[in-house]
Amino acid sequence: MIVRDFHKIVENDRDRVVSAEQWSSVRMLLANDKMGFSFHITFLEAGSEHTFHYKNHFESVYCMEGSGSITDLATGETHEIRPGVMYALDQHDKHILRAKEQLVMACCFNPPVTGNEVHQADGSYALEDS
Amino acid sequence: MIVRDFHKIVENDRDRVVSAEQWSSVRMLLANDKMGFSFHITFLEAGSEHTFHYKNHFESVYCMEGSGSITDLATGETHEIRPGVMYALDQHDKHILRAKEQLVMACCFNPPVTGNEVHQADGSYALEDS
Repeated sequence: MIVRDFHKIVENDRDRVVSAEQWSSVRMLLANDKMGFSFHITFLEAGSEHTFHYKNHFESVYCMEGSGSITDLATGETHEIRPGVMYALDQHDKHILRAKEQLVMACCFNPPVTGNEVHQADGSYALEDS
Repeated sequence: MIVRDFHKIVENDRDRVVSAEQWSSVRMLLANDKMGFSFHITFLEAGSEHTFHYKNHFESVYCMEGSGSITDLATGETHEIRPGVMYALDQHDKHILRAKEQLVMACCFNPPVTGNEVHQADGSYALEDS
């Protein structure tokens, strides 16, 4: 059994915390935990806007706090995000995420993130072996 | 892209809500969503105690609200549960979950739950095809 505390990771285990432009993410589970998915608590700054396109991953995102919206760039549809709303990128959907207030999200990735990916210019994560 | 709202499911989509003795769960993503994992928001009543043993699944559980504890029945170790604590049953660990206050948990299962499983007498979910 793996037991991890978000607050202890933030204080003492900074290798599990990644920050980029106006977002940060705490990696609660990664590929080497061998769960078949990874699990992250992700923060998006109030007023920020992000274009993501996970071509190689499925991701689900559950809003725990905050408000904003997601726009599906294939259809142009925009959905409001507030606590309790989940979106799942089952089509590797390219999207724009907008945080009106700071968003706090619980995210699952399949395949699991290894921790070595970088966001590429097209908004995707490369697979580690690609 | 799949977008679902926990609150709308609770109001209008009761097929996605399962309740058993002193717990209930809202199924945000199931196997037929083809994400490779399922995602659930689960409530455990204050004062309740549960023995679970997911022999056929990996599960991660992130505490969003409440307090309680988890006891690993293989080692006898007990870990406190409070918001921000996650446990992951990477060894299909048989465990006792105790809710001191109502626990609200974000849960991921691999393989994904289909929605047709039943808790067996041994605390496990059968695989649908087993």
